[in-house]
Amino acid sequence: MKLLALVSLFAAVYSPVAALWPQPRTINTGNNTLRLAPNFQIIVSGHGVPSDVQAAVGRTQSYLAKDKLARLVVGRGASDAKSFAQAKTLSKLTVSLEKGAAWKPITSEAQKAPADRDEAYHLTVPADGSAATLTANSTLGLLRGLTTFGQLWYAYDGTTYAIETPVTIEDSPAYPYRGFMLDTARNFFPVADIKRTLDAMSWVKLNQFHWHVVDSQSFPLEIPGFTDLAAKGAYSSSQVYSPSDVQDIVAYAGARGIDVMVEIDTPGHTAIIAEAHPDFVACPGATPWGTYANEPPAGQLRLANSTVTNYIADLFTAASELFPSTLFSTGGDELNTACYDIDEPTQAALNATGSTLEQALDQFTQVTHKALEVKGKTPAVWEEMVLVHNVTISKESPVLVWISSENVKAVAEKGFKIIHAASDYFYLDCGHGAWVGDFPTGNSWCDPFKSWQLSYSFNPTANLTTDEAALILGGQHLLWAEQSGPENLDDTIWPRAASSAELFWTGPGGNISTALPRLHDVSYRFRTRGVKTISLQPEWCALRPGACDLTA
Amino acid sequence: MKLLALVSLFAAVYSPVAALWPQPRTINTGNNTLRLAPNFQIIVSGHGVPSDVQAAVGRTQSYLAKDKLARLVVGRGASDAKSFAQAKTLSKLTVSLEKGAAWKPITSEAQKAPADRDEAYHLTVPADGSAATLTANSTLGLLRGLTTFGQLWYAYDGTTYAIETPVTIEDSPAYPYRGFMLDTARNFFPVADIKRTLDAMSWVKLNQFHWHVVDSQSFPLEIPGFTDLAAKGAYSSSQVYSPSDVQDIVAYAGARGIDVMVEIDTPGHTAIIAEAHPDFVACPGATPWGTYANEPPAGQLRLANSTVTNYIADLFTAASELFPSTLFSTGGDELNTACYDIDEPTQAALNATGSTLEQALDQFTQVTHKALEVKGKTPAVWEEMVLVHNVTISKESPVLVWISSENVKAVAEKGFKIIHAASDYFYLDCGHGAWVGDFPTGNSWCDPFKSWQLSYSFNPTANLTTDEAALILGGQHLLWAEQSGPENLDDTIWPRAASSAELFWTGPGGNISTALPRLHDVSYRFRTRGVKTISLQPEWCALRPGACDLTA
Repeated sequence: MKLLALVSLFAAVYSPVAALWPQPRTINTGNNTLRLAPNFQIIVSGHGVPSDVQAAVGRTQSYLAKDKLARLVVGRGASDAKSFAQAKTLSKLTVSLEKGAAWKPITSEAQKAPADRDEAYHLTVPADGSAATLTANSTLGLLRGLTTFGQLWYAYDGTTYAIETPVTIEDSPAYPYRGFMLDTARNFFPVADIKRTLDAMSWVKLNQFHWHVVDSQSFPLEIPGFTDLAAKGAYSSSQVYSPSDVQDIVAYAGARGIDVMVEIDTPGHTAIIAEAHPDFVACPGATPWGTYANEPPAGQLRLANSTVTNYIADLFTAASELFPSTLFSTGGDELNTACYDIDEPTQAALNATGSTLEQALDQFTQVTHKALEVKGKTPAVWEEMVLVHNVTISKESPVLVWISSENVKAVAEKGFKIIHAASDYFYLDCGHGAWVGDFPTGNSWCDPFKSWQLSYSFNPTANLTTDEAALILGGQHLLWAEQSGPENLDDTIWPRAASSAELFWTGPGGNISTALPRLHDVSYRFRTRGVKTISLQPEWCALRPGACDLTA
Repeated sequence: MKLLALVSLFAAVYSPVAALWPQPRTINTGNNTLRLAPNFQIIVSGHGVPSDVQAAVGRTQSYLAKDKLARLVVGRGASDAKSFAQAKTLSKLTVSLEKGAAWKPITSEAQKAPADRDEAYHLTVPADGSAATLTANSTLGLLRGLTTFGQLWYAYDGTTYAIETPVTIEDSPAYPYRGFMLDTARNFFPVADIKRTLDAMSWVKLNQFHWHVVDSQSFPLEIPGFTDLAAKGAYSSSQVYSPSDVQDIVAYAGARGIDVMVEIDTPGHTAIIAEAHPDFVACPGATPWGTYANEPPAGQLRLANSTVTNYIADLFTAASELFPSTLFSTGGDELNTACYDIDEPTQAALNATGSTLEQALDQFTQVTHKALEVKGKTPAVWEEMVLVHNVTISKESPVLVWISSENVKAVAEKGFKIIHAASDYFYLDCGHGAWVGDFPTGNSWCDPFKSWQLSYSFNPTANLTTDEAALILGGQHLLWAEQSGPENLDDTIWPRAASSAELFWTGPGGNISTALPRLHDVSYRFRTRGVKTISLQPEWCALRPGACDLTA
């Protein structure tokens, strides 16, 4: 029955239930139109309903009232007027937990470890006017169901209506980690931009905000006890995330079913720490920067230096208290050995202790990871930590594969859990020319542009054995911000990042032709909610599904 | 003396007079700081000063008060505080026409034929507190000078100040046509977006808005007497430019020194006309569209059909009355002969008259161009009209070279005036993946992305003889809107299009390393004025000119 439903779904090439994104894993639809009653209500049944559940219901009601998304067909729904004039009216959606489940805040459900998150839900919308029902085992599942319910509706001439009812949906994600990464260090993003991004993430059921908050260029995070880093390393005093900003962002994310994994990238990508602690950084500002770092300025944390190691361990401890997530990324990418080669204190320390750089890196990693593990955190790392360096890393640590999707297999063979973040599929910044100066014919290192079609077509388990495939936690799009800021945030991310949201929720194998009309709907609905998505095609094409296909 | 000034300019690699864009053709600067008096005033001396000149003065005053652009250096101007505390104060800029010149509106000066536009000006800003002076032979020149004056100022801690004063500038453009083209047919742009773009254009002294207003996908222009085209061919009734919208846009542009060249692309790119006049269009909606058109939907105006030819001639006549410009683009690109081959009425008409398709095209062009010439207009055409087709075109007609910059030479050899618009340098839409559906590995046809560095490095007279070089009117960036809309308009255009603004004002040969810090200033200043420019680099780099150069 599940299989049948899926088959019928993909057979209906341009299903008018176009606005569902990600596509539910099982859906059955009918051929009736249903109107939303002007006095439509969402009723949560149960005692002790958490406030973030009530807030999610309120947002859903608000979107139903304000979206006013016209169908993307010629006439924008005029042809539906006759059928909805005679349609039954839906007055109520009842929302409840399944028997035995206890009311807990969405936030706490979202902040569980990926494997423990329960996002499944069951949604039924009858066509006869009787109440719709949404049930789940967790408030996080209810949130996902409310999100789906909110995507069923179009508006025309003052009427809000759904087509293809009755609708029955049984849904849960294919992968537990479905993320988006934002770099707020190359250029700064105000809190409001991050919140708007979290809203948009929640609309496509993304559940993980990976916050690459600091880097060699700026340190905009104010960490209690370590405030000199931001005071001296932020671009300005107004370009800082205070502890209350972080609390605000974490709470905002949690209420939307999103966990926040912060990243304090070490020991590379740390040149800016020299502004506050010159003694902690090897080869600070060394030139030519291209020899000593992947980006200017050069400079990375000294190894074989217990003062530095303990400082970072303490920094991690303090930072971890700002973020309730079980995950904490310690980075570990792009370590530059030439920088250490020319750094006399590092060389002296290595000689004094008789250790190699790799041994010193292992020591640094063990101490700093231990500090997090003591706080109940699972460190996440970039792929080099297990592929380039032979560092002691817990097998519980997710490894983010970024350099190339071809490296996934090697990480899996080592038995690590994997988060797909490959530049060849998921980097949103590629293809916009060189940002490095004095480089007239330069393009971005990860050319070309990664289209939504490319990431949508990604196979998360390509070349993996069954056991290796079980190591895949999910994946994410990423925005490195060398050429981004608040000005182009929305249109750089959306709707492209929705493609991985569906890939990792619905599972791979989606058809880009059937996806495109739904993705247009995502894009147009996002705009009604204030997120400035790009146009994927001329509006002429958006209104005529399939007409602009290559072979049409 | 002029040469010396230019040499000294390029020698001063990271001149703090960073915010001037385009770089004046002759500039002399000193080493003093100058403060702007709180009661600073711009005084226009003369009688009968046109209202658009007064408005330009008002805008300049407003920008001086509101820009509050901090210098792009570490500390954002803190290090200037000592020098401006002791600086002289400028209280007045006197603006006047040179002897013998008469006050005429900026608008009428801007709407002259390119060769007749006088944009030269002379600006002196003494360092001793005595009045600054701006003179020109035309109000259009005064506008350009006011724009330059407005770029001299930074703000820090409540003080507005200029560095490197005294400043003496003698300036005029290298090329008379410096444009930007926007396609409003693939996706629609509200009037407010066009006005904001016109403002931005004026800030970098662009003087030509090339408005590709209609195309095969939609017809958003309401032309008196031909209103059925928009009524049936616009995406919706709210996505239409009414005659009063056009008047508003043309006036807004004119007051900012910008002429509006409308384009009604014919005989290709006209499928949408079939919505109102099915009999006028050959092969409407023919599939596969790829055989009959470069983009869906197929369909182009019938040739060898006097009804259609006269209709378009009358349409041009009516449209020309909406646009005071001397220029009017009739298009002429991408004519598809396969479409005519399968169109029985066209074939019957060709057989009946015994003419070839080329002869019919020539006839169509002559009649429709004649209608414009009668109205005092000079038709502009895309390159195919003179390179692919052997059509009778006046040598006064500017030819826009778009397919490749390699085609410039061939057009010049035929003796036509040329507007640079080559896709390999100036297309802003390239490199964002395929918009055509069902094309998973597709990229844009004009990949890769055209960086600002690339267009800035363009040589407008490459391979041309001196006589041929004299045919170059100038050039422009272009935004085809298949993947653009209001949401990404600003960041797709800016600051990239500023690179051609400087190229065609200052002339070729600019250095991208010295340009970059100034372009950052353009970008940051645009943002203070509400235009959402992209970040060219991490802010760390923007604050440290040269530090992120490839070889730094």
